[in-house]
Order: sequence, then C-alpha cells, then structure tokens
Amino acid sequence: MLLSIPKEELKERQNRFIEKFSEKGCDGAILFSVTDIFYLTGFHFHPTERPIAVIIDPNRGVHLFVPLLEHEHAQQYAAVDFVHSYPEYPGIRHPMEILKDILQKLGFDGKRIGYDAIGYGSPMGYRGPSLDQLISAKQFISLKGIIEEMRYVKSENEIRLIRESCRWANVAHRLLQNYTKAGLSEMEIANRATMEATLTMIETLGRDYKPHGTPVIATFRGQVGPESAFPHAVTQNIILSKGDTLVTGAGASVFGYVSELERTMFVETVSKEQEKFFRHMYEAQQIAFSAIKPGVPFSSVDEAVQNYFAEEGLTEYVRHHTGHSIGLLGHEAPFFDRGDHTPIRPGMVVTVEPGLYVRGLGGFRHSDTVLVTEKGIEILTDYPRDLESLICA
Amino acid sequence: MLLSIPKEELKERQNRFIEKFSEKGCDGAILFSVTDIFYLTGFHFHPTERPIAVIIDPNRGVHLFVPLLEHEHAQQYAAVDFVHSYPEYPGIRHPMEILKDILQKLGFDGKRIGYDAIGYGSPMGYRGPSLDQLISAKQFISLKGIIEEMRYVKSENEIRLIRESCRWANVAHRLLQNYTKAGLSEMEIANRATMEATLTMIETLGRDYKPHGTPVIATFRGQVGPESAFPHAVTQNIILSKGDTLVTGAGASVFGYVSELERTMFVETVSKEQEKFFRHMYEAQQIAFSAIKPGVPFSSVDEAVQNYFAEEGLTEYVRHHTGHSIGLLGHEAPFFDRGDHTPIRPGMVVTVEPGLYVRGLGGFRHSDTVLVTEKGIEILTDYPRDLESLICA
Repeated sequence: MLLSIPKEELKERQNRFIEKFSEKGCDGAILFSVTDIFYLTGFHFHPTERPIAVIIDPNRGVHLFVPLLEHEHAQQYAAVDFVHSYPEYPGIRHPMEILKDILQKLGFDGKRIGYDAIGYGSPMGYRGPSLDQLISAKQFISLKGIIEEMRYVKSENEIRLIRESCRWANVAHRLLQNYTKAGLSEMEIANRATMEATLTMIETLGRDYKPHGTPVIATFRGQVGPESAFPHAVTQNIILSKGDTLVTGAGASVFGYVSELERTMFVETVSKEQEKFFRHMYEAQQIAFSAIKPGVPFSSVDEAVQNYFAEEGLTEYVRHHTGHSIGLLGHEAPFFDRGDHTPIRPGMVVTVEPGLYVRGLGGFRHSDTVLVTEKGIEILTDYPRDLESLICA
Repeated sequence: MLLSIPKEELKERQNRFIEKFSEKGCDGAILFSVTDIFYLTGFHFHPTERPIAVIIDPNRGVHLFVPLLEHEHAQQYAAVDFVHSYPEYPGIRHPMEILKDILQKLGFDGKRIGYDAIGYGSPMGYRGPSLDQLISAKQFISLKGIIEEMRYVKSENEIRLIRESCRWANVAHRLLQNYTKAGLSEMEIANRATMEATLTMIETLGRDYKPHGTPVIATFRGQVGPESAFPHAVTQNIILSKGDTLVTGAGASVFGYVSELERTMFVETVSKEQEKFFRHMYEAQQIAFSAIKPGVPFSSVDEAVQNYFAEEGLTEYVRHHTGHSIGLLGHEAPFFDRGDHTPIRPGMVVTVEPGLYVRGLGGFRHSDTVLVTEKGIEILTDYPRDLESLICA
C-alpha cells in the first residue's frame, strides 16, 4: 500500500496554487508556513529558529530554502526544482540576507509578490527582517488562507492515509480499553497501549511507513474521574478508581495525516447520573451525524446539536462546539460552530464530538473522524459507541 | 521536592515585566505567546485555533483571556488576578470582539499599549482582526523579545527543574543504550526505553509531578547507520546493524522545563574511520566546555570549535553551530554561533553539541545540557562521553 502522497499529486498542488495566486495578480509567492510547505512539497522537518521558506516562480520553478543541516534531506525528499541553503542561524550573514540574494536573482524586485506571512516567525529565539525590508516589490499581496482552503477537500490519496490513521487509532484505543483498570495510573495504561500499538503499527506497515508525527497514541490526557469535567485537561498522574468517568483520546500519524477517536468510558460501574449524561451526549452525536450533508453550512450541524441540548436543559454543561476539520493538523477549519457558515462538501474530513461537562461528576464526549460523502457521511473510526461496550471491567 | 515554580516567583516575573514595559513607555500590555503566557502565569494549555491572551494593566492587574473550555482550568492553575472567557471560536461573536470589550473596560483606548504580536496567530484555522483594528491606542509599542530576554538567566527554581529533567534524560538514555542491539528496529528500542523511563519517572515523582510536555523520551530520530549523517533526520523504521553509528537523543519535561542529552554510539564494533571522527567530535566538545565563561560572547565558543575543525581539515563535515540555550523551549536564544555576540552570564543553561557529518559513514555529535556558573560550567547531563562506554554490545 502506498503510504505517502505521490510526487505527481504534490506537483499538481503546486500548479493549482500557482493558478490561484496568479488569479490574485501575483507574479510569484513566498511561503513560511510549515504545514503548507509540507503540503506543497512533501518535505517534513522539525521547525526551529532556523528559517525555512518555499519560493514559487511560475516561470523559474519551485525553490526550497533551508538551513544547511537540512540540505541533503531536502534534496532527497522534497518535490521541488531547486534546494538552496544557508550555513546557520543567526550566522555570520543572517539567513534572510541569503534569501534576499535568491529573491533578487529570481527578479522579485519590482514584481507583485504573494506571501503568507511577512517574514519567518518562531518562538525559538528567531529574530529577523520582514520581506518588505528585503525586496522592493511593486506590491505585497497576502495569500493567507489560500492553501488552507485547498486543504479543505481531501484527495483520494489523502483519504487513504487518513483511513489508515483511523485504523491504528482504533487499535490503540482497543488496547487502552483492555488495559483500563481501577488502581492503575492513567499514564501506565496509556503508555502500555501506546507502546504496543506503535510496535504493531511499525511492524505491520514496514519500511515504507513514515509517520511524520507521533506514530500512534492512546491517552486520557488527565480526563479521569471528576477531572474529566475539564474538556482540555493535561496529563497528570491520576490513579483510576471504580466508578470513574473517563474521556479518552487516540490518534495516529501516517505521512503527516492524523485522525481523532475519543470515547467516554467508565470504570466497572455506571451511576444513573453518569448514564443520563452519557445518553444525551450519545444522542447529540447521532443528531450531528444525521445533520452532516453536502451543501448545508457547517453552522447548521452545531445548531442542531445546541438546539437539542437547549431543549433538554443541558446548555449549562456545554463547553465547546461540535467539531472541526482534520487532516495535516489535529484541528483545521472549517468548524462545526454556529459562527462558521462554510458549506459542507464531499471529501471533507471532520470530527464529530459534542460534549457535556458536569462539575464533580465528569466529562461526556465521543469524538469520531468522519468523511463527508456525496450522500452523507462515512464514519472512519469504527469503534463501539454504546454504553455497554464502554464499561471497563 | 517542589516540582513547579512557586506563585511568588510568577508574580515577581509579572512585576519585572511591568517594570520593563513601563520603562518602554507602555501603559499596559497584551501578549499572545504561549510560552511567555506560561512563563508569567504558570498556566499550561494546548494552543489551538482558540485564542488565548494575557492582558497586563499595572493598576488593574493581570487578566487571562481564554476559551470557555479552559475557564475552570485557568481559575485553578493560573497565577492571575482575573480570568475572562469567550464561548467558542469562531463563535457567534468573534472572540476578538469579546477581547475588545475587556480592553475597552480597562481603558486601553487612547493609551500606549505594548504587544508581542499584533494579533493572535495559529495555523489551526484561526482568522481574526489585529489589535489595531480592535482598539484606538495612542501608540502600539512592540515588546517582542523582552520576556525572551528575561528567560535567558534561570532562577534557582528553574535550575532545580532543569536538573530534574536532566536526571530523567540520563535514566532514559541508559535504558536506550541497554536495549540497543543489532537486529532490532530503532522504534522498538526507543519505545521500550521511553515507556520504562516514563513509568519509573511518574512513580518516583508522584502526584505533584506535572510534565507540561512529554514526560521523558529517548530516541534515535532516524539517526541510524549512514542515515545518522543527516543531523536533523526524522524517525523511520530502521533496523540496527553491526557497525552502525548511532546518534541518540533523550530529554524530559518537568513543569515545562526541558533538557537535551545526545550521544554518538556504535553497534558492537567501531572502525578506524568512525573512531577518527568520534575523537575529533569529542575534542571539539571539550574545547567548547573550556571556552564557556561568564563575560565572553556566545560567538567565541563557536569560534573556538570552528577553528579546531578548520585546523584539522574537517570544515566540510560541519552542518551546524555549537549549541543553543534551553529552558521552556528545546531551542532558545542566545546561540553558540559566530553571529551571536550576546555575553554569557551565570545562570544561563545551554547545550554544547558540535557535530561532524560524514556521508555514507554517519553523524558524530554529543549534546550536553550545561549550567553556566560564576567560574565556568557545571554539566547537568552526567552520562559517559568516552568511546569505550558508548559501544553497545
């Protein structure tokens, strides 16, 4: 099985991007976004203080600008026409001075130049001049959001990678559930499941598998017992007790494409109160699944869910909207949010995860990764959702 | 043992920051940087498309602005005077509209306002207005770099947390070395070491331990055999063979503070050629250790190393400078780079990691985390550096 995006598709993305920035009147473009550079070139790297950029000139090709220590790696893996590099950051000459030379050789002075950010940015100690201090463009035109929007609808190849990611999220989650037991710490259970899933994944997929991220993970992220009432808790060292509500999270990275699978589980027993909130959360997710159809706005799905919660008198337990898009990043636009009116389209991949959070009792949220089809949806994370299946012995 | 930064120290940081921005003529400040918000408030969160900011008014206190789903979490953990929240992003009203209300209530219109970035930024589908579209300040004054510079010299508490991080990096690396064996895959070895070190760390440090990051990790990051000649390789699924050069990496996170420990190791045997480059790398690291002294510029340490490499005719094998600072981020300024003339000061924590990269043979780099003292240095990652100790049976 092909576990990457073929070079032809990367080239096709570059051509589509050139079309789009040409329509905006740009003669060339410079991008600094890590995710968008990966999307266009297939070049995966750890972003640091050392700047990286891609420069696209419709007549003179696609140029990747990297630090020396990435040069050979870039030549081997990036679908670009030229790799340029600079010795080091901050260096005796600043990397942006070297970028300036390249831009001048490409004749960017006096042209209309598209950009995603006006300079490189990194919290890791980077300082440097902005693009308008480097070249005298005729005009600088923001292209922010263009590649993000190209990424909204996934290709067959992208869907294949996300499907594979979902398969391994399922495996990791199954192991997490199997090892869940009162008296053990969340980290012990999560690490055991993660490690076993990782080894199995690597062995199964073989040498062609490039994670470009954490291969596979299953975790509680601190969402254990009453702490699960914090929807975005952070991992602590909580020991599980009988009767705890648990909110899990599992995902995998396949050539940079990710997925999300979350379940509400219970340790041994379920109280009436827990069952009540579980059933409302379950129902809300079903409502969201039914509401997703090509052509309707993202907002309508969240409205359907929030209306249900309002009718049931549960609004006070809501802490977030119904879901988000997913692909190269764990959260992407558009969002299932009452303020996001982007139309749903076939080929989009989204998470569906309405939640309820009850102080002192726990959090109640399932999250599934879902493909929008011509007719409705296909749920890619095929893991039991019903209460009975989620009580851990 | 105290495994966090006490609230008094967080408050003291806030006061120092207020002094610094007041000196710059600011009446108040707004910050969006995740790391700097954590540094000032102790509030750790997973940054997403949902904006977070801290607003500091010397007369009206420190205000944290978070999404609803972080509200209770922020109230519990953040050392701030007020927590404000907005329902959701993008929301029916954009979060920045709600921030605007807060800024207006604080009377920021018509004032001199310091900022680190002119608006919130996130690659995860965030779009929103910039600060100058929200309020009519008398003047916007960039404070970029001020907190970063406050973070250069570590406090006693910070050094204590970094020491603890180094201890666990050492443990993880020891396990990694113990499990290293021809015929096994890099991920299998790395995951086993990581999991065991993680469980031991959690059990030892107990309930007070908050990682605020990956607890502890040991990895090869794809730097196995000839692939180790790529200094910033990414994890693959390489099977180790007899005679391989390995470049490792280990680190741990303790209340967000990290460390770095890297070693060049060999599988079973070492050729004359491998030994030659190992000894030069070893010597270069010793030269760097000796060159680090309070008062001299960071550049002089890199110069000493690069001069040695030049004298030995090894410059063609160099791919990066000698090291960087470390603390809340894995890479921080200042850098051991010929272009960075910042003076070295006691209390700084840095990595020392000159490297040589030989196509077809491998990479040669040790990295140690080092504290600058009044007299010179203290090496915090106390792990064998000599060739004999690093040949894996």
